[in-house]
Amino acid sequence: MYGQVEFDLFDAIYTTRSMRRLKPDPVAPELIVKVIEAATMGPSGSNRQPWIFVVVREASTKAFVAERYRKAWEVYFTPRARELVANASDSPQGRILRSARYLAEHISDVPVMIFCCVKKYKDPARRGQPMQNAMFPAIQNLCLAARAYGLGTSITGLHQAYAKEIDELLGVPAEYANLALIPLGYPKGRWARPERKPALQVTCWEKWGNRASAIPES
Amino acid sequence: MYGQVEFDLFDAIYTTRSMRRLKPDPVAPELIVKVIEAATMGPSGSNRQPWIFVVVREASTKAFVAERYRKAWEVYFTPRARELVANASDSPQGRILRSARYLAEHISDVPVMIFCCVKKYKDPARRGQPMQNAMFPAIQNLCLAARAYGLGTSITGLHQAYAKEIDELLGVPAEYANLALIPLGYPKGRWARPERKPALQVTCWEKWGNRASAIPES
Repeated sequence: MYGQVEFDLFDAIYTTRSMRRLKPDPVAPELIVKVIEAATMGPSGSNRQPWIFVVVREASTKAFVAERYRKAWEVYFTPRARELVANASDSPQGRILRSARYLAEHISDVPVMIFCCVKKYKDPARRGQPMQNAMFPAIQNLCLAARAYGLGTSITGLHQAYAKEIDELLGVPAEYANLALIPLGYPKGRWARPERKPALQVTCWEKWGNRASAIPES
Repeated sequence: MYGQVEFDLFDAIYTTRSMRRLKPDPVAPELIVKVIEAATMGPSGSNRQPWIFVVVREASTKAFVAERYRKAWEVYFTPRARELVANASDSPQGRILRSARYLAEHISDVPVMIFCCVKKYKDPARRGQPMQNAMFPAIQNLCLAARAYGLGTSITGLHQAYAKEIDELLGVPAEYANLALIPLGYPKGRWARPERKPALQVTCWEKWGNRASAIPES
């Protein structure tokens, strides 16, 4: 009823992993708007909806961002991380880093960049802090909706190292933080359940540390 | 396949509004674990999974939290907010505040409280800040999965005004922030699409401020 496809919620939740290897194929504008609409269904304090999504598809803007993204990646990609990537063993950390390196090297070719901008607080206690508690539920909605359309996403913040230049180019005003960059496109890889700790291992019952080895009976 | 029910993703995204009026009926532990498992499918930087979910169902703990939650609410519920609630006109703000007041007054009766705790950064630049960018996508997954089981949620942070006392009771260690309290239970109200601005109004194309009145053709 609300989407343009039917898709099982749990299939979406359990197979929306970060997809950093994207094909350059264009994405239909209707789908871009649908994933943003899904994002806006997320909750925000007092229903402020403090978000603006800047959709970038122009090659020159993508190239500008990509140049800075790669520079930020070079700083992030420490000698220790390089070691993990070079290591022949197929560790989960190594795989994430290889995929992140791929994105850094190819980000100018992604068909769509979505910059997720959120208002900053004005009250004295939190002045200037972005309302990120509102932005990230919306972003998760966006990523799940994209999954239903067969579109891959990942959430990155590396562009923030060059926030000033990028925000100037995009025209993001000072009252907003350009919190996340989501590359959006059809993925080269396969959808699959991501590696996670078992739920019972991250669940405590009544008190911190009180884990159960099996689901309690009541 | 992954859930215990089939549920359309877009129906979930478009009808998961904050449900603050909950019945006291118990929630099956399998469902509590399933919504937490759904949460853990959320993304986190380097797949750190820096979250712990503390599930509270004991009456004495709920009463302890409720007492403090209500005190925090009294501070939050400013004269201006009281005016909005008292106002006969059925404004969206007034409705949210009435519903939030109901929660504050009845929070000891919710069947389940889930405290979402997240690790704090250790690196010098962000030391002590909670990894909230990881927590909130997970929380959104939790709320959507709950929706599929007919369970209502809302995301609140009011308990943080008494974080010290509450964390001491629950045993939350200093390296974690008790970021959000999610009351979970069967709702009294109806599911419905929340009021949101149209997607095109919060979408800019290529540059800030560049809105389209209709979906672009390409």
